[in-house]
Amino acid sequence: MKGLPPTLNKVIEAFTRFPGIGNKTAHRLGLHVLKSTENDIETFAHALLNLKNKISTCSVCYNFSEGDKCEICLDEKRDKNIICICEEPSDIFLLEKTGYRGVYHVLGGLISPLDGIGPDDLNMVSLKNRTESSKELIIATDASVEGDTTALYISKILDSTKIKITRLARGLPVGGHLEYVDEATLARSIHERVEVDSAL
Amino acid sequence: MKGLPPTLNKVIEAFTRFPGIGNKTAHRLGLHVLKSTENDIETFAHALLNLKNKISTCSVCYNFSEGDKCEICLDEKRDKNIICICEEPSDIFLLEKTGYRGVYHVLGGLISPLDGIGPDDLNMVSLKNRTESSKELIIATDASVEGDTTALYISKILDSTKIKITRLARGLPVGGHLEYVDEATLARSIHERVEVDSAL
Repeated sequence: MKGLPPTLNKVIEAFTRFPGIGNKTAHRLGLHVLKSTENDIETFAHALLNLKNKISTCSVCYNFSEGDKCEICLDEKRDKNIICICEEPSDIFLLEKTGYRGVYHVLGGLISPLDGIGPDDLNMVSLKNRTESSKELIIATDASVEGDTTALYISKILDSTKIKITRLARGLPVGGHLEYVDEATLARSIHERVEVDSAL
Repeated sequence: MKGLPPTLNKVIEAFTRFPGIGNKTAHRLGLHVLKSTENDIETFAHALLNLKNKISTCSVCYNFSEGDKCEICLDEKRDKNIICICEEPSDIFLLEKTGYRGVYHVLGGLISPLDGIGPDDLNMVSLKNRTESSKELIIATDASVEGDTTALYISKILDSTKIKITRLARGLPVGGHLEYVDEATLARSIHERVEVDSAL
């Protein structure tokens, strides 16, 4: 960018590579760094450098972890009998906000024949081994074709076991109005309707 | 944030301190860093660390600079007789996009009695010294009360010199519709109307 020193340009260019950050935002972020204290910048830079060295994958559930096992798997208060299956480690962060107290299993993707991703590319073998000692599996994949396919596959391979397999409910979003909901969701919410006294 | 390793949390927290970056965006940016290659992260971290060490202020115009003088002041093709006065170094970046070929002078702020900022807090003395050898001053401060006050002050202190002092025009934004323009701007655009043949 014209009129800016090369060192600043490098930082701005680096910011533009982030998702959802355009030229203007990157420019504003770059100037913010320049105005920050040297101490703040060093803390930030070192946090970035540490990221790759320190973070690996949990050997049990494939969540992000700083040791062999992640914090959730190490937590003795969590119910190890309920396993929530999700696509990416970042999904765990969202699910944790709901107050869920079981453990997780990260698949590392969803079955997608069009993209050449089959069950063998996902963490399925370890999932099957884990389920032997658990009581319930909650499949928390996206409500997409790939999410549905993956859920179906998991329920098929575990069909012989006595484990309870559930999926996330589909329906109206909380606070949502009927007029803004698409037909497919509305149809699903009728199909999967619940008795009034069991609803929250 | 629950469910995330502390090292990742540190990076996410650092991102939330940036202007306009909320928790959700910071979370997305943090995960993006985790997915980047080690090489990319190192380049980014070093660019950040370099910023404070390498960038100082131009001794002539107070723009950002990596040496004693900034790139614009060193450029022999620029017209040193026209000086554009602006508030912050970041304004230069915007003005450069217009194809302006003169030089700049950064005030480092605007006169604002309410905030306790007077002319002595700005780069006024050096501006006065520079104007002696120049032909035209373009005052490119904001169209705000502080911007107007500062422009008035500059024109007063240079009143005795024969230098031509101009301000940025106010009026309809290019491509703007009359119905969306506020009254003050419209009044100003009538007051400062230009003859049709002189308009672009």
